Amino acid sequence: LASKLPDVGTSIFSVMSQLATECGAINLAQGFPDYDPPQVLTDALARHAQTPGHHQYAPMPGLPRLRALISEKTALTYGVSAPNPDTEITVTSGATEALYAVLAAVVRPGDEVIVLEPAYDLYGPAIRLQGGVPVYVPLALPDFLPDWERVAAAISPRTRLIMVNSPHNPSGAVLTDDDLNALADLLAPTEAFVLSDEVYEHMVFDGQQHRSVLQHPELAARGFVLSSFGKTYHATGWKVGYCIAPPLLTAEVRRVHQFLTFAVSTPTQHALADVLANADHYQSLPGFYQQKRDLFGELMRATRFELLPSPGSYFQLARYQAIAPNEDDVTFARRLTQEAGVAVVPMSAFYHDGTDHGLVRFCFAKKDETLRAAAERLRNL
Amino acid sequence: LASKLPDVGTSIFSVMSQLATECGAINLAQGFPDYDPPQVLTDALARHAQTPGHHQYAPMPGLPRLRALISEKTALTYGVSAPNPDTEITVTSGATEALYAVLAAVVRPGDEVIVLEPAYDLYGPAIRLQGGVPVYVPLALPDFLPDWERVAAAISPRTRLIMVNSPHNPSGAVLTDDDLNALADLLAPTEAFVLSDEVYEHMVFDGQQHRSVLQHPELAARGFVLSSFGKTYHATGWKVGYCIAPPLLTAEVRRVHQFLTFAVSTPTQHALADVLANADHYQSLPGFYQQKRDLFGELMRATRFELLPSPGSYFQLARYQAIAPNEDDVTFARRLTQEAGVAVVPMSAFYHDGTDHGLVRFCFAKKDETLRAAAERLRNL
Ligand SMILES: CSCCC(=O)C(=O)O
Ligand SMILES: CSCCC(=O)C(=O)O
Repeated sequence: LASKLPDVGTSIFSVMSQLATECGAINLAQGFPDYDPPQVLTDALARHAQTPGHHQYAPMPGLPRLRALISEKTALTYGVSAPNPDTEITVTSGATEALYAVLAAVVRPGDEVIVLEPAYDLYGPAIRLQGGVPVYVPLALPDFLPDWERVAAAISPRTRLIMVNSPHNPSGAVLTDDDLNALADLLAPTEAFVLSDEVYEHMVFDGQQHRSVLQHPELAARGFVLSSFGKTYHATGWKVGYCIAPPLLTAEVRRVHQFLTFAVSTPTQHALADVLANADHYQSLPGFYQQKRDLFGELMRATRFELLPSPGSYFQLARYQAIAPNEDDVTFARRLTQEAGVAVVPMSAFYHDGTDHGLVRFCFAKKDETLRAAAERLRNL
Repeated sequence: LASKLPDVGTSIFSVMSQLATECGAINLAQGFPDYDPPQVLTDALARHAQTPGHHQYAPMPGLPRLRALISEKTALTYGVSAPNPDTEITVTSGATEALYAVLAAVVRPGDEVIVLEPAYDLYGPAIRLQGGVPVYVPLALPDFLPDWERVAAAISPRTRLIMVNSPHNPSGAVLTDDDLNALADLLAPTEAFVLSDEVYEHMVFDGQQHRSVLQHPELAARGFVLSSFGKTYHATGWKVGYCIAPPLLTAEVRRVHQFLTFAVSTPTQHALADVLANADHYQSLPGFYQQKRDLFGELMRATRFELLPSPGSYFQLARYQAIAPNEDDVTFARRLTQEAGVAVVPMSAFYHDGTDHGLVRFCFAKKDETLRAAAERLRNL
């Protein structure tokens, strides 16, 4: 069986997590918390697991009461009119499925899709699987914000979609209103769609606010906005996300979703619906994660890593030049895992061509004691 | 947004379930039980929902202990050597995701895929979404077994894959050893793959045995075999299935799975692993469902429906000619739902061209009292 995906190996996140397990390393590589979801949520899942009648197919677009609550939360969070739960919201098996469904719905063979790099490693292969052509535009270091003139230069008559991701994985960069305006201006003369990956929406620090594509009417009219309960509720293993898009776009996403997975776990959707009306949890997330970012930054001062700014997300990029000036980032990440016992992701994994800036990514969604233990291991390098 | 899927509407199962709800009809349309999973299983989910550390990403191919148990169960059930959990088993978000992942992994633009009709309604659109061309071969009534000479005539140098489904939805037909041998002979001179949808594997009646593609070495070597915990454990809403395939084929399925959904709910996988070692549940399924099929058949004798044989699955086809001789099956199914208060699926929904044999499909995975109440409503027609 000759692969349709010739140049895709195992995802770096799986590779590094496995290496971490083998080496007994502290896993700051794959992005997931080492703490549990809020107890109200795990209790809710336990309750629905034992509720008769909550075990068969959910409606294909998601449980109505969960979609209604997503709509309210969105209106409350972004000060926008509530998306219509019947026609604009689709619950998916994680934001990953939403992302794939959007690409499968929108990208036709030969279509170009603009990807700002570094980018989450599944973007490129998922585009190619649809017969699409990723067109990569690099983000400039150290702030990783788009140079919109470079993006403009990448637009062609075959541009079908542009993918944006704020807060940004792996850098934590956060798009501003000016960025969204620039994007809207660029796209005005085109018919291109926008896929906005906003899964870290509740992790923006230092008083800055996440700006959602939903808040920009011209972008929202052509936008697919993705979010993730896994990220917001410390439950990456529950695999529930969603897509918000205008009715005509949602209709296409659902046509694919109905064949991809059809529906999402019924008891899990009930559990999330039980807790979603209470805003306390997600409103506390910026503070919760800022404390972690700051603690980690503080701890890392005792090491020879040089940290880049991380205004959002639960990731932190770091330069290791002072420790291993001439080492490529993959070799360094492996050595760090094996020899220092701290697993990280080499940032080159986020570039289709393996561009190496001598940076590795730490995930700081970890207990304070985990962050302390990791920093302790990194001090002697 | 011009649709990439021009001729696909909302799935008939969603349409009929919604109509059933609107009309207060008894829903014998969409295939799902109206009873709950075994209590050991719902208790297990409740337990894992409250187990610290069971809430983050599972490994991409599935929890190792669940894959090990699937391997043992497969060996025990089919008397075959145990599939290798590391290289041959992938846990997916329902058999639906497995089906889509196989198609996305295998079907290249222009490839032909043979589909025996009537067929589950997602096969054709999911093939077309990959740029593939479904080649339909009708199954002959009333037994719905393949005419292998017609299948042979449909094979071309562009045949990439043939899809088989036993026990068969919507007819309940069960392939025999002779069928599998005939299929293997047909495929011997080709390089085509086999996708075997065996989600109703534990619902075969009257002493007949389900024959799995896994039991036929030549087919197994080119086969992707799909199963579904949702069907086997009365938990269609939990969305966990799996794919068994040789290592090189599994590698390709995983390459797609890692971008489609990445992983499946961690607490749910743990719960299924807790109960899978006990064979009592699934070994009791043939008897459990045969009783339901027989009860429903008995009850329906008091109506003017004429039942076809149903040797497997939880579906029953019925001819309504005596009730509405000249009515097309879609109109009849709607009327039955609205006027008699019993929802069914018109069999034409399982044909790409809407072939109408004057048959509707009942799902008998319902409590005895539900089946009695439905039959009561059907008596006066
Ligand atoms: C699905 S595993 C990857 C998790 C993640 O989002 C990341 O580490 O960037
Ligand atoms: C995913 S809804 C369809 C359920 C089913 O398998 C059927 O009714 O045939």
